[in-house]
Amino acid sequence: MTGYFEGIAPLAHDPGAEGLAFRHYDPDEIVLGRRMEDHLRFAVCYWHSFGWEGGDPFGGATFERPWFPNDDMGRAKLKAEAAFELFRILGVPYFTFHDHDVRPEGARLAESHARLDEMADLFEAKMAAGGPKLLWGTANLFSNRRYMAGAATNPDPDVFAYCASVVRHCMGVTHRLGGENYVLWGGREGYETLLNTDLARETEQMGRFLSLVVEHKHRIGFKGAILVEPKPQEPTKHQYDHDVATVYGLLKRFGLEGEVKVNIEQGHAILAGHSFEHEIALAGALGIFGSVDMNRNDPQSGWDTDQFPNNVADVALAYYEILRLGGFTSGGTNFDAKLRRQSLDAEDLVAAHVGAMDVCARGLKAAAALLEGGALEEARAARYAGWARGDARAMLAPGATLAQIADRAEAEDLDPQPVSGRQERLENLVNRYV
Amino acid sequence: MTGYFEGIAPLAHDPGAEGLAFRHYDPDEIVLGRRMEDHLRFAVCYWHSFGWEGGDPFGGATFERPWFPNDDMGRAKLKAEAAFELFRILGVPYFTFHDHDVRPEGARLAESHARLDEMADLFEAKMAAGGPKLLWGTANLFSNRRYMAGAATNPDPDVFAYCASVVRHCMGVTHRLGGENYVLWGGREGYETLLNTDLARETEQMGRFLSLVVEHKHRIGFKGAILVEPKPQEPTKHQYDHDVATVYGLLKRFGLEGEVKVNIEQGHAILAGHSFEHEIALAGALGIFGSVDMNRNDPQSGWDTDQFPNNVADVALAYYEILRLGGFTSGGTNFDAKLRRQSLDAEDLVAAHVGAMDVCARGLKAAAALLEGGALEEARAARYAGWARGDARAMLAPGATLAQIADRAEAEDLDPQPVSGRQERLENLVNRYV
Amino acid sequence: MTGYFEGIAPLAHDPGAEGLAFRHYDPDEIVLGRRMEDHLRFAVCYWHSFGWEGGDPFGGATFERPWFPNDDMGRAKLKAEAAFELFRILGVPYFTFHDHDVRPEGARLAESHARLDEMADLFEAKMAAGGPKLLWGTANLFSNRRYMAGAATNPDPDVFAYCASVVRHCMGVTHRLGGENYVLWGGREGYETLLNTDLARETEQMGRFLSLVVEHKHRIGFKGAILVEPKPQEPTKHQYDHDVATVYGLLKRFGLEGEVKVNIEQGHAILAGHSFEHEIALAGALGIFGSVDMNRNDPQSGWDTDQFPNNVADVALAYYEILRLGGFTSGGTNFDAKLRRQSLDAEDLVAAHVGAMDVCARGLKAAAALLEGGALEEARAARYAGWARGDARAMLAPGATLAQIADRAEAEDLDPQPVSGRQERLENLVNRYV
Amino acid sequence: MTGYFEGIAPLAHDPGAEGLAFRHYDPDEIVLGRRMEDHLRFAVCYWHSFGWEGGDPFGGATFERPWFPNDDMGRAKLKAEAAFELFRILGVPYFTFHDHDVRPEGARLAESHARLDEMADLFEAKMAAGGPKLLWGTANLFSNRRYMAGAATNPDPDVFAYCASVVRHCMGVTHRLGGENYVLWGGREGYETLLNTDLARETEQMGRFLSLVVEHKHRIGFKGAILVEPKPQEPTKHQYDHDVATVYGLLKRFGLEGEVKVNIEQGHAILAGHSFEHEIALAGALGIFGSVDMNRNDPQSGWDTDQFPNNVADVALAYYEILRLGGFTSGGTNFDAKLRRQSLDAEDLVAAHVGAMDVCARGLKAAAALLEGGALEEARAARYAGWARGDARAMLAPGATLAQIADRAEAEDLDPQPVSGRQERLENLVNRYV
Repeated sequence: MTGYFEGIAPLAHDPGAEGLAFRHYDPDEIVLGRRMEDHLRFAVCYWHSFGWEGGDPFGGATFERPWFPNDDMGRAKLKAEAAFELFRILGVPYFTFHDHDVRPEGARLAESHARLDEMADLFEAKMAAGGPKLLWGTANLFSNRRYMAGAATNPDPDVFAYCASVVRHCMGVTHRLGGENYVLWGGREGYETLLNTDLARETEQMGRFLSLVVEHKHRIGFKGAILVEPKPQEPTKHQYDHDVATVYGLLKRFGLEGEVKVNIEQGHAILAGHSFEHEIALAGALGIFGSVDMNRNDPQSGWDTDQFPNNVADVALAYYEILRLGGFTSGGTNFDAKLRRQSLDAEDLVAAHVGAMDVCARGLKAAAALLEGGALEEARAARYAGWARGDARAMLAPGATLAQIADRAEAEDLDPQPVSGRQERLENLVNRYV
Repeated sequence: MTGYFEGIAPLAHDPGAEGLAFRHYDPDEIVLGRRMEDHLRFAVCYWHSFGWEGGDPFGGATFERPWFPNDDMGRAKLKAEAAFELFRILGVPYFTFHDHDVRPEGARLAESHARLDEMADLFEAKMAAGGPKLLWGTANLFSNRRYMAGAATNPDPDVFAYCASVVRHCMGVTHRLGGENYVLWGGREGYETLLNTDLARETEQMGRFLSLVVEHKHRIGFKGAILVEPKPQEPTKHQYDHDVATVYGLLKRFGLEGEVKVNIEQGHAILAGHSFEHEIALAGALGIFGSVDMNRNDPQSGWDTDQFPNNVADVALAYYEILRLGGFTSGGTNFDAKLRRQSLDAEDLVAAHVGAMDVCARGLKAAAALLEGGALEEARAARYAGWARGDARAMLAPGATLAQIADRAEAEDLDPQPVSGRQERLENLVNRYV
Repeated sequence: MTGYFEGIAPLAHDPGAEGLAFRHYDPDEIVLGRRMEDHLRFAVCYWHSFGWEGGDPFGGATFERPWFPNDDMGRAKLKAEAAFELFRILGVPYFTFHDHDVRPEGARLAESHARLDEMADLFEAKMAAGGPKLLWGTANLFSNRRYMAGAATNPDPDVFAYCASVVRHCMGVTHRLGGENYVLWGGREGYETLLNTDLARETEQMGRFLSLVVEHKHRIGFKGAILVEPKPQEPTKHQYDHDVATVYGLLKRFGLEGEVKVNIEQGHAILAGHSFEHEIALAGALGIFGSVDMNRNDPQSGWDTDQFPNNVADVALAYYEILRLGGFTSGGTNFDAKLRRQSLDAEDLVAAHVGAMDVCARGLKAAAALLEGGALEEARAARYAGWARGDARAMLAPGATLAQIADRAEAEDLDPQPVSGRQERLENLVNRYV
Repeated sequence: MTGYFEGIAPLAHDPGAEGLAFRHYDPDEIVLGRRMEDHLRFAVCYWHSFGWEGGDPFGGATFERPWFPNDDMGRAKLKAEAAFELFRILGVPYFTFHDHDVRPEGARLAESHARLDEMADLFEAKMAAGGPKLLWGTANLFSNRRYMAGAATNPDPDVFAYCASVVRHCMGVTHRLGGENYVLWGGREGYETLLNTDLARETEQMGRFLSLVVEHKHRIGFKGAILVEPKPQEPTKHQYDHDVATVYGLLKRFGLEGEVKVNIEQGHAILAGHSFEHEIALAGALGIFGSVDMNRNDPQSGWDTDQFPNNVADVALAYYEILRLGGFTSGGTNFDAKLRRQSLDAEDLVAAHVGAMDVCARGLKAAAALLEGGALEEARAARYAGWARGDARAMLAPGATLAQIADRAEAEDLDPQPVSGRQERLENLVNRYV
């Protein structure tokens, strides 16, 4: 026991509690025929919860965790102890990590790998002893200065090769730990200025790397999903996996649309000019929905603030789209969210997760009730009912031509009249459930 | 003669002129071995230059053109006279139009078609008499209330059919007038709220419609390019042809990437969070670059302001990417830009085009000199030179595996060192030409 | 009876209703010792609810109200009948209007005035017969082309004079109808380009006009508040009443901070980069809080969408700030919100208001409970408790010098330690009430 | 000599140079009757040019300067040597610094002060030996975790007192070194969440602190200007010195508008939704223009990118407004701009400044020619010429009433007609000079 969370016992579901407890999240509550835990599939990420020191571009670290700084294997193990203590306090079924979060990087590649293996041994033991499962693993290919001009898209082919080694190793560890997905976030796969960039070449490299990763996954028998995490920019001016639509185009370009899915973060959706629910619905429509990072942005800030979710209505709309898609398969609800820089205390760290889990539980229940109520889907279906007509279906069927359709429109002297979209009524309907 | 531009003679190239003249645009000047006119391929669009009345969401018309309002064929012909007078004053080689710009809509479909044909007769005569050529035609599928919920993506299949008739007719007129492209801008192909929208179905409809248009193009022997004009939003909350990357994904999804290209507008790029040059370079890398609308946005406004370009450096970067792609083929530089609402005078209309053409001429010449100078391309090539190495090429070649690459990285104990990206030096280099 | 709302009876409070009814808004429910109606002070605005025709920059009217177009006094009276029918259906205690909303503009100034008087007669009769009261009146000084370059800030002094007449008349009508406030929204008080603008002169004109309005208010014995409605831009590139802080500076510059308050709109706050609650809290801190327009923006759109509110949590934070300030005095909750362009039906118009009123009622009740609970204010007070110390108070007291304070800091070798800001815990606390 | 800039000699003005040189900046060239150096008053800031290590929120340091890390007085002196070498290479007349840039913070307040004094001794010697003068000094009240909740606006009064000591000391050093201004940038004077914030109290603290600083300035006989540097947000969600208009309101509130001016940064203006030239013109109109930070933002990024300027046209518009105000008095053109994170080399650091100085020189010369040409000011004056009429002046004169003005408007039956704003023509005019 690290003592870091001293005085904070594993949390129960207790709607009337005054202190730290889940008021809404109850893993065993049945929602749409499934346990709430199995719907939400919560994961806590090492990255912000244990790795972030509270710095920002204008100020240094504010947090004083006993496992800082991240340059010593002893502290890495202390961090792991604390992390699994928090997982236990929260009762989350999953965790996630970047290699860089769980061990200090070594002086050379081999040492980095050995250190990751050593931490994986520790994780394996803790997971066997009742710890959470691994939702996904990933490699940090963006913090070290060697990646400043890209990882797979680097102008230097040695960086590409270096990444191959890192990803192979990290995917191996993920596989060994039973990870259900493997994630790639391309924070440096983009450019700072078009003036020094060969866009065609770099995106070719990116597609090539993804293809290699997919091939390797099959080679080692990893059954989890490969997930790309779209983000439009930040840290780079432009990132190649800009949003779900862009990733889809990239996957199609390299024939990977059946092999790779997306991990969608609310904050990244916002930065790309989309709502979170849009990105989820689009991924569903394109057949590439994988998982979510439930990190919101501050609506008045133009960068990724990675805050814990706190608006039930917003979250409900996201889960509604997920439920419409049939819920998560290999994916889940990951918190790669970070405390505010002024939230210094251990209790802040616990409370942030608890509040977010409750917000998600409320959102899920509202979404489920809305879906079960049926009125929203009935309204949607009614709006498109005309397309069930024979003449309508025929227009979409192979062989129909523009000329035939135009001939009919002219022969029938069509004059289609608009029908109310009923947006406010539908918003009111949603508000009966949220 | 309408008298509208009374006192304004066709404009000459005169670098030292005090009054209205081209100080920089000289159609016959040779740039990179081609006449400037043939590089820039200027087109003036009917839409804003002749159709816009000066209204905005908070105020009514401010312009008092003798051809307003757009509800009478007599005024439509007067408008055409004025338009061709402006084309002649400017000496532009091309014009463009929406059906809706050139004639009032009829009470029924057939009347609308007949009116367009009548105007096409007039255009044909004027073009034969030395008027400009047609860069592209397009159908307005967004202003009439019948399109409020979409054109091809409408929940009502009759709207889809109606659009088939409109597009067939408008494409026919474009073909007859020798148009070099046909454009589709999907201003209503999107949604206002996800709550009433079937995203999968609507994008299927959109792809289907595009496929029908392509099939029809071949059927009638139209040799011009089909161009989609991306825009992320406005008027709708979300538009399906969001940006170049999104359009590419859509084209790939429906197997149309070899048939359809993009018409990129600076303002739309900005709204989507991209630079204009990014969108051009990306379209080039993906093989779908078609044409541009040289309409800038106000950098402090969150909507499409469609202003005439006035920043030479910005325009130079766009032409630089176009020149790197080998210049325009069927596309050109279209001004679908609008005067400011307070720019009431005929002289404002002329001067806006003159200023913009001069800005483009300066931008083109700077871009050409930069390309000829060679230093920027040398720097770019040098940055990626490592990829010419055999071991580098091998990583991208079919058959290579992640494991092989990783093995080599580990065997060689790679430790790649970052190299300066030299952004400021490249920006300084560009500034020697702009 | 116009028949426009046929079949829609005045709405009751009925939490379990299936059809149109208030599920949450109950005028007589006591909240913090006051009737809910007296807290919320709902007003419906003529502007969007009755005047907007459904057009946007890319399309024409979609709504087909029997009182369109706005160019005939007969239709103006029909519109008034319909408006008062809606007021009655909703049971709102207030309405608001622009002169331009309620009558077509006349050919000359005098006719415009006479027409407004004629409509005021009608209003007076309807108000006497049990209609709602007038929360505020205002003059539309932005739609007509004469205002394109500004109203009070116009380069043409005749426009300034013209506005004086319009505002005098409109304020007179407001006074006669017992209006509780008079509003000025300066949609054209700004500039499109700095190149043709004398910023110093124009803001002087603006301050001068405000001073004249204040003087006139006292002269005629109008007891209502004068409210300025800040907006950063749109329609103009830059508006001089940018946000609350800017308006405060303007008022101070002209000595009007005791005479003029602000009418804050959520959408305008968002456009200016602020949260709604920020603008309310700031206005309170500066002593200039007046009233609100409860029109939200779409978070993904860069222009004013003026949507009806639908997020309870957002609205609760706004009312929380209002309650902290002691609630409204002369102000209220105005809906100058507009239906979506596709919401064609009379029922949409009713339902939009009903949904919004319910959202506000839920928000108010949550805010009241949070305030009564006391925990948030206790936490806030505790955070600043140190400032009650004598040495702390002394630093703020007149006569203290930087040198004295610095001397003490150095003598005591101060080394202040940061304390958690507890943001996530406070957000969780709020979520117990929302 | 540090050897850091080995091989780079002091740079000359050489328009035809191939290598590093000023192609446009010539300190002795006469522009509008004044030496270019005396117009531009360039300063290089320690902060980004010598202090920034190349980190961003997603990655660590990339630069390897021999004076990193900033925790040793020996390295601080090495950094000073390198800084003065760069100043000499560039031939800039000024430099600027934060206390934190020039020395590592001490364990206690007194040690921090002593270290700053020690560095000031070194500076004094270097300045006496021909080094540049000090444009301004400032205290870093935002990086250390003690300031995480604000400096003067901190909930902890000890932080306020601590700041008093720091600012007194830093202002003293600035005074001793002959600094021409003293700057306060309130990066943490704002809030992360309104939920834990007492807005009224914090802004009172801020005003109080400013008043103390002003009083102290006079007490010690410091003749330089006190400058506040507005920024809307980042690092905090909301900063109290949001933009020029907000700062003006704050100064008026505390009676400081005659004592404090603003230091305007292009990037901060952009973040606040303004153009750079707007903020300068507004500060001029309000009588509080002080100085500029010539750091641009990337137009596609929602955070402060602090890039070196590279667009001549943008810079020209800024200098045009400065020249209209009569040019700088105590202020100047400071580069607190940072290299891109990938620009690793010493040559990048030099070239970035050289390019920026040349861009500014071109901008200044264009602005001066435009002003001398006179056509823009003539057009502006003509636009407002009507206000010279007696009846117009009377409306603005004391004693005029709304009623009188309205009476006249009605008696004369005014019907003012709009006049073209000529925006495009004025933009064309500007482009003849840029």
